[in-house]
Amino acid sequence: MRILTKKDVQAVYTMKDAIADDKIALAAYSKGDATVPLRTNIDVQAEHGQSLYMPGYAAGEQPALGVKIVSVYPDNIDKGLPSVPATMVSLDPKTGIVSAIIDGTYLTQLRTGALQGAATDLLANPDAKVATLIGTGGQAPTQLEAMLNVRQLTRVYVSDIDHDRATKFAQDMTDRFGKQFNVDILPANDLSKAIRASDIITSVTTSKQATFDAADVQPGTHINGIGAYTPEMHEIPAALVQRADSVIFDTMDGVLAEAGDMITPLKEGLVTKAHYAGELGQLINGKIKGRQRHDQVTLFKAVGTAVLDVVVAEKILQAADKQHVGTSVDL
Amino acid sequence: MRILTKKDVQAVYTMKDAIADDKIALAAYSKGDATVPLRTNIDVQAEHGQSLYMPGYAAGEQPALGVKIVSVYPDNIDKGLPSVPATMVSLDPKTGIVSAIIDGTYLTQLRTGALQGAATDLLANPDAKVATLIGTGGQAPTQLEAMLNVRQLTRVYVSDIDHDRATKFAQDMTDRFGKQFNVDILPANDLSKAIRASDIITSVTTSKQATFDAADVQPGTHINGIGAYTPEMHEIPAALVQRADSVIFDTMDGVLAEAGDMITPLKEGLVTKAHYAGELGQLINGKIKGRQRHDQVTLFKAVGTAVLDVVVAEKILQAADKQHVGTSVDL
Repeated sequence: MRILTKKDVQAVYTMKDAIADDKIALAAYSKGDATVPLRTNIDVQAEHGQSLYMPGYAAGEQPALGVKIVSVYPDNIDKGLPSVPATMVSLDPKTGIVSAIIDGTYLTQLRTGALQGAATDLLANPDAKVATLIGTGGQAPTQLEAMLNVRQLTRVYVSDIDHDRATKFAQDMTDRFGKQFNVDILPANDLSKAIRASDIITSVTTSKQATFDAADVQPGTHINGIGAYTPEMHEIPAALVQRADSVIFDTMDGVLAEAGDMITPLKEGLVTKAHYAGELGQLINGKIKGRQRHDQVTLFKAVGTAVLDVVVAEKILQAADKQHVGTSVDL
Repeated sequence: MRILTKKDVQAVYTMKDAIADDKIALAAYSKGDATVPLRTNIDVQAEHGQSLYMPGYAAGEQPALGVKIVSVYPDNIDKGLPSVPATMVSLDPKTGIVSAIIDGTYLTQLRTGALQGAATDLLANPDAKVATLIGTGGQAPTQLEAMLNVRQLTRVYVSDIDHDRATKFAQDMTDRFGKQFNVDILPANDLSKAIRASDIITSVTTSKQATFDAADVQPGTHINGIGAYTPEMHEIPAALVQRADSVIFDTMDGVLAEAGDMITPLKEGLVTKAHYAGELGQLINGKIKGRQRHDQVTLFKAVGTAVLDVVVAEKILQAADKQHVGTSVDL
């Protein structure tokens, strides 16, 4: 059994790897090769916490099996501990034996960034140069990293309801990615202007209202909605959902059960279900079409699925095994 | 995070500890202080395997949280690997952070032995001297150990459909427990005779038919049915179920959903539901009565519950922390 920390994962596995592996996972999901049971929630009332168990299995030529354990303990912040600690437990799909314990927080950031990276790679115009990232929380760095990996961006605006936080984030990310990707990362002093200049927009917030104005979105733009994961959350403007030429989800079942910004326009009759073209995995499998013309607006919405966790975890483990990275323990 | 192998567990935690902690877990369960969601089963058809996820939570003064992962891979035997590998993942109930990874195979053997030990302690006559153990598979050693821990037995007969296996098991167990408990452990050459001589009978098989004759059971005997865990399994004779003065389960829901030897007599009208007195936790909590007289026949039936796993795992971890046993790793 191998124990893999965030550092271990970073030593053997890149965002490019994660984007490629998320595509494998999504293709398997849309083909019906994945088993994703309903997650199990345990309320730990005494601590105002919740403990969630998300098992998954991907069949096929590159099988993967395991369970991600995520706890939501808001009171942890007062204790100086992460409020959403997560741990991935991988099993060897050939034997059912536990093969790895992996930092689940970084795994989630990585596979969620890669999910958007896969969509942006397949849906954004190839000549995209400018992007806007809205939201600078825990998931934001890998969202930025994913965009930088799939398009040669020259400028990325970052925006947050807390402008100081956006400024700080832009500085940190410039230190981290500025030279590597030869990109300017700037706080958006005028979000409208930033959106109008953008070829790619990624929103990763839990906002209940739209985080930008649909009217500012230019023809040819690709938009990613990554944050909203409950029916109350609406970061993507309904007018944009309606206007988009191609709307594609990570999983149809997941988005239509959880994502307010896609459920509400449907419920209010702004769009019909036929407006939602299908899943990114179907696009990868050649079953549906994505962008058809340079001036089209494409929209990707994701809520995540355990199959991404198990596939990416399995690939990380394979890389770590090969390079003898991580702590190997017997059980 | 602490990694605890079977050896680590054995170094810090005894069967006596497990019996005491199983009682705590059962008491919490019967009080309604436990959360035991339905387990999640994933079919891994390509390997003819199954992967099972069993989370659980015990609230109260001694909280415990976690998930046991058990895989059933019959083909593993051909690979020289365990066919039912198991791993326990404990979480700190105060923070939701993974705190330990524990050998789940030994944990299961320990808590299942202790479950019977708790019942035997509470239901068998105090002067019990002779026992019979039927079935000598993976769960049998801890079943024997549990009986030896709660009663001063002078003789234990062991029986198996494979008599050579019973002989070998008796020898192995004599080496292990003979001196420590000052007990003779013998293969049952005549099972009828052994049953007639026994104050305690424990059956731990997956047999579809009764493993002994109800007519051989003497007044005053306590019987444990530990093996049957599907509606097809019937190791305890129906006539004995009917005749028993007190029939007590580990969990009412679990036994009536899974254990053929208790479901079938009910379905066939041999007993009414009122014949099933209740749960061992209710007995511990003083809500129901157990044995009333020396000559009564008592029957305990168990199918197990995740609350036993989480509570025993938490207690093992606490002991290991105190004694600095196991491999400590950062995640």
